Amino acid sequence: MTATARRRPLAARTGEASLTDEIIETAHAAADAARAAVLPFFRVDELHADSKLADGFDPVTEGDHAAEHAIRAVLAERRPRDAILGEELGHSTGDSGLTWVLDPIDGTRAFLSGAPTWGVLIAVSDASGPIYGVIDQPFIGERFEGGLGRARYHGPRGHRTLATRPARQLSQSILFTTYPEVGTDAETAAFARVAARARLTRYGLDCYAYGLLALGQVDLVIEAGLAAYDIQAPIAVIEAAGGIVTDWQGNPASHGGRVLAAANREQHQAALQLLSGPG
Amino acid sequence: MTATARRRPLAARTGEASLTDEIIETAHAAADAARAAVLPFFRVDELHADSKLADGFDPVTEGDHAAEHAIRAVLAERRPRDAILGEELGHSTGDSGLTWVLDPIDGTRAFLSGAPTWGVLIAVSDASGPIYGVIDQPFIGERFEGGLGRARYHGPRGHRTLATRPARQLSQSILFTTYPEVGTDAETAAFARVAARARLTRYGLDCYAYGLLALGQVDLVIEAGLAAYDIQAPIAVIEAAGGIVTDWQGNPASHGGRVLAAANREQHQAALQLLSGPG
Repeated sequence: MTATARRRPLAARTGEASLTDEIIETAHAAADAARAAVLPFFRVDELHADSKLADGFDPVTEGDHAAEHAIRAVLAERRPRDAILGEELGHSTGDSGLTWVLDPIDGTRAFLSGAPTWGVLIAVSDASGPIYGVIDQPFIGERFEGGLGRARYHGPRGHRTLATRPARQLSQSILFTTYPEVGTDAETAAFARVAARARLTRYGLDCYAYGLLALGQVDLVIEAGLAAYDIQAPIAVIEAAGGIVTDWQGNPASHGGRVLAAANREQHQAALQLLSGPG
Repeated sequence: MTATARRRPLAARTGEASLTDEIIETAHAAADAARAAVLPFFRVDELHADSKLADGFDPVTEGDHAAEHAIRAVLAERRPRDAILGEELGHSTGDSGLTWVLDPIDGTRAFLSGAPTWGVLIAVSDASGPIYGVIDQPFIGERFEGGLGRARYHGPRGHRTLATRPARQLSQSILFTTYPEVGTDAETAAFARVAARARLTRYGLDCYAYGLLALGQVDLVIEAGLAAYDIQAPIAVIEAAGGIVTDWQGNPASHGGRVLAAANREQHQAALQLLSGPG
């Protein structure tokens, strides 16, 4: 199924407008619950953390678990027949045809460092892949939402519609990845071919970079070694904003691995050629 | 003059408590004015920006100028006899013995990318170096303030006292720098010696990393090629929080260049040995 078909509102396929509303409301309730659960563990007071470290206290692990439990509690109440695939607590089966794909803290290293660029990722998938997703940054209070007819940003300075940047030369592009080492030597070399042509390459934002792409601030995000729960919410958000997400061969990226997210078809083609080429 | 002497409140040296208050109030007023001036240029709407690009519109340059003009307007009214050294608008002389050292947007590449990790840097220096500084992040609404008896953080989730982390093994440390390429080959190699021993190395936060150090979230920030206006505010903030900032030889860093900022003496010594060694 193509990206365009996945962006088509669920209601158009199911004939149930109320289902679309219910999914969106559930996702927001889950994201709100995750915010409340995870924030007490962010930038936790050093002395407080140290006193518990003797007992094995790890704020990232604790925050990860608290957020996923909070999301699962919302889903158990509102959508008990949906399946769940969570980064922390594994897979729960369902019979509705829908799966919630969760990464309660994407960017644990950012979280551990106090940097406000980690996020809570919540996606809803059907057999075609992710149909709706939320990237939430609890500390700043930003939420990027896409799919089922929505493409919205909510932040401390107001709301706006998500829309990726128009096409421009690769030499004018802003490129993000999380780690300078990217992945294997071959993956790092492929990334470097794109970086060498871009205007600007930046590091270290984890899922926040996908939000910036959907917001029209950057042109490309390229990563390797991702899991399904790392990328399903960004796929839904970016596709809703007009962007394209595939693997480095141009195939669906919803299972993770090597990911190329682009603001538009021209950027996607230019980067794909460099990533998939012989080097 | 030692770091300890610089942290001593100005009032203790001048006998004028009101001068201390005046400097602090002026710095906050200047930071508030910079916030208001710069935010309209952050994440500026792409279509809007494009329509002006034909006329040479550059949101970073415009924001930089607007913020520095706003700060200078506050200083002209409240502290007309102080000197000013600004990144954008150069040097203005004064006869008070105090100089305001300004970087209206530290982290222009972050700003350009929509990442909320740039900052407005405002420092006040006397002959001894920076005595007070503010690192302000306008979009999130965070302010790190240190010197003249203050060590405070103000953010969207409340206020707290700035205090750097207690000593720990280098192998347990979190290290930040802005660019993976750091500087010259020799500088990059020296940085890599520290990074190889640290628990975690992260990239890309510009001045925000110094704020996280003062907040007790990270242990080390190491950079090269800085200007005086890049580092004077971080020096004041970090020293007030209990940290240490020097160059890579252990000498004062207020002129910029190679900078080592550490949470405590043990971290500083461990990193200094690796940075200054023969490699």
